[in-house]
Amino acid sequence: MIGVGVIGYGYWGPNLVRNFVECPSTRVVMVADRRAARLTEAQRRFPGLQVTEDAAALIAHPEVQAVVVATPVATHFELAMAALKAGKHVLVEKPLTHSVEQGEQLVAEAAARGLTLMVDHTFVYTPAVRKMREMVAAGELGDIYYYDSVRINLGLFQHDVNVLWDLAVHDLSVMDYVLGRQPVAVSATGVSHVAGEPENIAYMTMFFDGSLIGHVHANWLAPVKVRRTLLGGSRRMIVFDDLEGSEKVKVYDKGISVNPSPDDVHQMLVGYRTGDMYAPQLPVTEALQIEVRHFAECIEQGLTPTTDGAAGLRLVRLLEAATASMAARGATVQIGGPR
Amino acid sequence: MIGVGVIGYGYWGPNLVRNFVECPSTRVVMVADRRAARLTEAQRRFPGLQVTEDAAALIAHPEVQAVVVATPVATHFELAMAALKAGKHVLVEKPLTHSVEQGEQLVAEAAARGLTLMVDHTFVYTPAVRKMREMVAAGELGDIYYYDSVRINLGLFQHDVNVLWDLAVHDLSVMDYVLGRQPVAVSATGVSHVAGEPENIAYMTMFFDGSLIGHVHANWLAPVKVRRTLLGGSRRMIVFDDLEGSEKVKVYDKGISVNPSPDDVHQMLVGYRTGDMYAPQLPVTEALQIEVRHFAECIEQGLTPTTDGAAGLRLVRLLEAATASMAARGATVQIGGPR
Amino acid sequence: MIGVGVIGYGYWGPNLVRNFVECPSTRVVMVADRRAARLTEAQRRFPGLQVTEDAAALIAHPEVQAVVVATPVATHFELAMAALKAGKHVLVEKPLTHSVEQGEQLVAEAAARGLTLMVDHTFVYTPAVRKMREMVAAGELGDIYYYDSVRINLGLFQHDVNVLWDLAVHDLSVMDYVLGRQPVAVSATGVSHVAGEPENIAYMTMFFDGSLIGHVHANWLAPVKVRRTLLGGSRRMIVFDDLEGSEKVKVYDKGISVNPSPDDVHQMLVGYRTGDMYAPQLPVTEALQIEVRHFAECIEQGLTPTTDGAAGLRLVRLLEAATASMAARGATVQIGGPR
Amino acid sequence: MIGVGVIGYGYWGPNLVRNFVECPSTRVVMVADRRAARLTEAQRRFPGLQVTEDAAALIAHPEVQAVVVATPVATHFELAMAALKAGKHVLVEKPLTHSVEQGEQLVAEAAARGLTLMVDHTFVYTPAVRKMREMVAAGELGDIYYYDSVRINLGLFQHDVNVLWDLAVHDLSVMDYVLGRQPVAVSATGVSHVAGEPENIAYMTMFFDGSLIGHVHANWLAPVKVRRTLLGGSRRMIVFDDLEGSEKVKVYDKGISVNPSPDDVHQMLVGYRTGDMYAPQLPVTEALQIEVRHFAECIEQGLTPTTDGAAGLRLVRLLEAATASMAARGATVQIGGPR
Repeated sequence: MIGVGVIGYGYWGPNLVRNFVECPSTRVVMVADRRAARLTEAQRRFPGLQVTEDAAALIAHPEVQAVVVATPVATHFELAMAALKAGKHVLVEKPLTHSVEQGEQLVAEAAARGLTLMVDHTFVYTPAVRKMREMVAAGELGDIYYYDSVRINLGLFQHDVNVLWDLAVHDLSVMDYVLGRQPVAVSATGVSHVAGEPENIAYMTMFFDGSLIGHVHANWLAPVKVRRTLLGGSRRMIVFDDLEGSEKVKVYDKGISVNPSPDDVHQMLVGYRTGDMYAPQLPVTEALQIEVRHFAECIEQGLTPTTDGAAGLRLVRLLEAATASMAARGATVQIGGPR
Repeated sequence: MIGVGVIGYGYWGPNLVRNFVECPSTRVVMVADRRAARLTEAQRRFPGLQVTEDAAALIAHPEVQAVVVATPVATHFELAMAALKAGKHVLVEKPLTHSVEQGEQLVAEAAARGLTLMVDHTFVYTPAVRKMREMVAAGELGDIYYYDSVRINLGLFQHDVNVLWDLAVHDLSVMDYVLGRQPVAVSATGVSHVAGEPENIAYMTMFFDGSLIGHVHANWLAPVKVRRTLLGGSRRMIVFDDLEGSEKVKVYDKGISVNPSPDDVHQMLVGYRTGDMYAPQLPVTEALQIEVRHFAECIEQGLTPTTDGAAGLRLVRLLEAATASMAARGATVQIGGPR
Repeated sequence: MIGVGVIGYGYWGPNLVRNFVECPSTRVVMVADRRAARLTEAQRRFPGLQVTEDAAALIAHPEVQAVVVATPVATHFELAMAALKAGKHVLVEKPLTHSVEQGEQLVAEAAARGLTLMVDHTFVYTPAVRKMREMVAAGELGDIYYYDSVRINLGLFQHDVNVLWDLAVHDLSVMDYVLGRQPVAVSATGVSHVAGEPENIAYMTMFFDGSLIGHVHANWLAPVKVRRTLLGGSRRMIVFDDLEGSEKVKVYDKGISVNPSPDDVHQMLVGYRTGDMYAPQLPVTEALQIEVRHFAECIEQGLTPTTDGAAGLRLVRLLEAATASMAARGATVQIGGPR
Repeated sequence: MIGVGVIGYGYWGPNLVRNFVECPSTRVVMVADRRAARLTEAQRRFPGLQVTEDAAALIAHPEVQAVVVATPVATHFELAMAALKAGKHVLVEKPLTHSVEQGEQLVAEAAARGLTLMVDHTFVYTPAVRKMREMVAAGELGDIYYYDSVRINLGLFQHDVNVLWDLAVHDLSVMDYVLGRQPVAVSATGVSHVAGEPENIAYMTMFFDGSLIGHVHANWLAPVKVRRTLLGGSRRMIVFDDLEGSEKVKVYDKGISVNPSPDDVHQMLVGYRTGDMYAPQLPVTEALQIEVRHFAECIEQGLTPTTDGAAGLRLVRLLEAATASMAARGATVQIGGPR
């Protein structure tokens, strides 16, 4: 049984605690939060839990072998680094850190110490996203043409990060996992509608080698909630609508066929193909439980997590580049590789 | 009765002919198309119609007082200019021309001759779009924050223009009319998935003075059809879904309230407001009939059309800038005003 | 070329005329309507058409070989019988007649004279309905459990027939064709909300031999439009939503499996099965054109139409029984077979 | 603090326990279930809870003042009666009992002893249903014309009751509360698709005095989940779709106007009115928490619950009549009033 300590008992913390409680190979030793009221709430729901207002005490707790960091992004680096230096495995909320530099330090520290560093990219563990990756990997979509995602709603304005770091990070984690390829350049645009605050609406285009293109629209100020991803390939196309009760993933046997040497260039070049649609049956499982068990397994067996520090770092690199591009009203920013 | 000649009897031409036939103050004298089969079809549906394969003959026809140009965009300038020079009023399909320079010449020629020059921005004449303009003009939405539009489907690939000129032009015409304001800069991205062909997927951000932002996503290669516009304001927000059978326009009493001088900057700054939604009843009228009557009325009374040459030129200016930005992977391009 | 005369140029008449005009083996000779304004409208849209206010003149017209009856149901019998007696083939709007007795006379007359008698059950000629019949006939759904259909909207109140005769008749025609089986008894309920008028909301259950059950909900006074049919089978189930732009027919690999000799009767008897859903690609063709060509072919080759007089009569028998049941607040009424 | 004992820890039991735990004026003393595994699960989720396999022990527990019966319907009467006879207040799952006779005995016993008897008609405590009742009571819909509800999905087949007792009971509880009127007669139809089992698909029409009509379609064997209610009135109409994330209640300013003394009876009698639609903002509250607090308040203050024994009995009366009608293939069954 791996002893787990959870720092941060806000919106997502209770879900993390519950899932570590339900996971057969972990137990929750302690929860830390600066707000006493949150600790009282944690103890009401999970009697017997130890609590503290001092994150350092949690990290130092001898029964805590793995630390979960579920605090605002600005504090991720400091807490995760302290935990690693104390020899603890770490699961950090997304995004991994607030800067590429911080992310690189965490990755290096975990590697040097042989500790598990994992990022909570929850969507990667959902049946819908796993199905999409499977199909892409098996070539069922053919060549991938584009990845287009919309994540909008009337949402809580964040004050320390813009809407890309808060919402688009989900789409980037799915894209990273499903495509298995990284963008080489970014162009992003967006504005803030509240003076002095970060951008609350943003658009982000990602260029890959070849003609693959990615795009995310993130918006905290939309009247309706939309969670929809289009994945276009040369053989098939997918619509992933996360708000659908069932049939979240729809696969369309539609596309174009290109005639490489036509006689009549302008009329014959592009043909259209339209066939059946199908929605694969997906298992009903809680993604976070799968993720938590994977974290435990990686610790126990020394495996590399699917969403390891490197995956987290790839997203931070994208977000940093997008933020820079947004400041320059869309000017292209190249994505640096790992140093 | 204004005598009308229609050049181009392809996809849209039959609708134009039918509407000019049904309009009480116009009659269709002649139809021109280079394809004899199309002329046969025109005569089958509209017995008594004169037809010709020679556009010049139509323009020269003494009973033709108004020429409608419904041909591919590359030919708009030449045909429209010939008609104006022959002293005929002109209605041109969107987009007005293939370049700003051409558009400026048409506008100047029409002005010099006192002829009516109108562009077929059909959406501007729909009840839904008129309702949105009314609400914006009356201040019911408050300050306008953003205009976001998606127009995607598995569509016919064009060979002479990219997807922005073909699809986004509809959204730009609506945006131009509803907001009554023009962008000052553009950043666009997109790619072609068929070697040697124009971009078939594109994203276009428009910057206005202040914090208003516009965005259009246009795609010929999507598995599903989407026609959805979000219009966000400080007081209310609108979702316009053109594929809805009824309730195309939904008005949400939702938004944020910003506290200008809070004590606790980070917690109190942004408040949320969420109220009723309503969908105004819209009249059921065919937009093209309204437009055709407006064209006739402008000719008869010397009025300036709602979608005059200047409106058409504003869109060409945007599309030209977007195409340049797209070639530079999103680098900002400033929008020049009228020379 | 079969000469066609169309009696009744109201809501549906123009569609019939247009489709007979477009059909290569028919030509429209004459249109009859008591309202002079409708005849003017017909000639405006179809120049060269002969018109008359006198149906008898149309029936007697020597060039008219086939008569189409598109008038209110109360007049179907008299007009169709007159046409048959004049030796003309007949296509009648649904429902065939206002009573079983009238329907039987028409069927007998057509048979005696060797003339084609067909009913305009348009839905039977749609790709969606044909697909469903194909699947049922091929056993892809397994044993059929139920047929459930909803057809509601804010619709024109009829004064001579209740809502079942006006709306449910569509569903009954689809059910008749798709299942290929006839009900043995009916229970119907409904009320009128306007004193002295026929029922404007009605529910109709049909019992078949075995455990197959059918149900239709028809309503002229609903705030929303619904056109949805569920077809449940032991192997697969179908949802047919006619308002969907695409994917009108969805096939679900869902159901129950019944264990015939379980140990624990109450827990093990029924198992659940849930698999993929798929939406077959359907051709885009106008049903009425297919129907009109079928009518012409039946006349030319002496074939029995898919929707012949007998099919029309089966529906009238059901509607007559349902109306009787409705008057008795749901008491079962047996369906008599052909006399 | 009212001591609560919950009998039955199956599907719904955990929700009841959680809500009584969270309610400030109640505490959960004990949970009873015949299945030891369920008791283990209860203690895992709610450490400190007393448990027993013997319902009698729970009823006899001196700290238990209120007993919640969340067991199969066949056992409701015996357990609730035992609790009442032990002087305990009772909350029973819907439906109250398996027969009218049993229900009458429970109501009489509770009245004689001055104890609170309440039925868990959860929907009555939802914001959407409360809003509908408010609107009906205020006359905003005008005269009520019909209540039509569909509740279908691929659901667990019950072995002791048919689908009306399992699913339609929800709709009947809403109808009872929203309309505030009771039907006078019922006609129901349905079949079983599993030999020896109760009906798994059923239709139920309810007649009221005047022209108000009610209808429920309940189905355990549908490929899709539908939860939709139409409420038609002379002034406005409502669509309540419980699967909508937001905008569950839509109010349509649509309907007909009837001209009482028209000149042209057949053309002028019915006019149509179609106006805006609006979706009122609804509070986000858990219905069961509201209900649990209401139960506590009724006990403490001696109030009559909104969903008291009499309300539960009204539904059992309807269900018993419907089951009798279904056996007679739709023959009308009169609803007896309270004896």
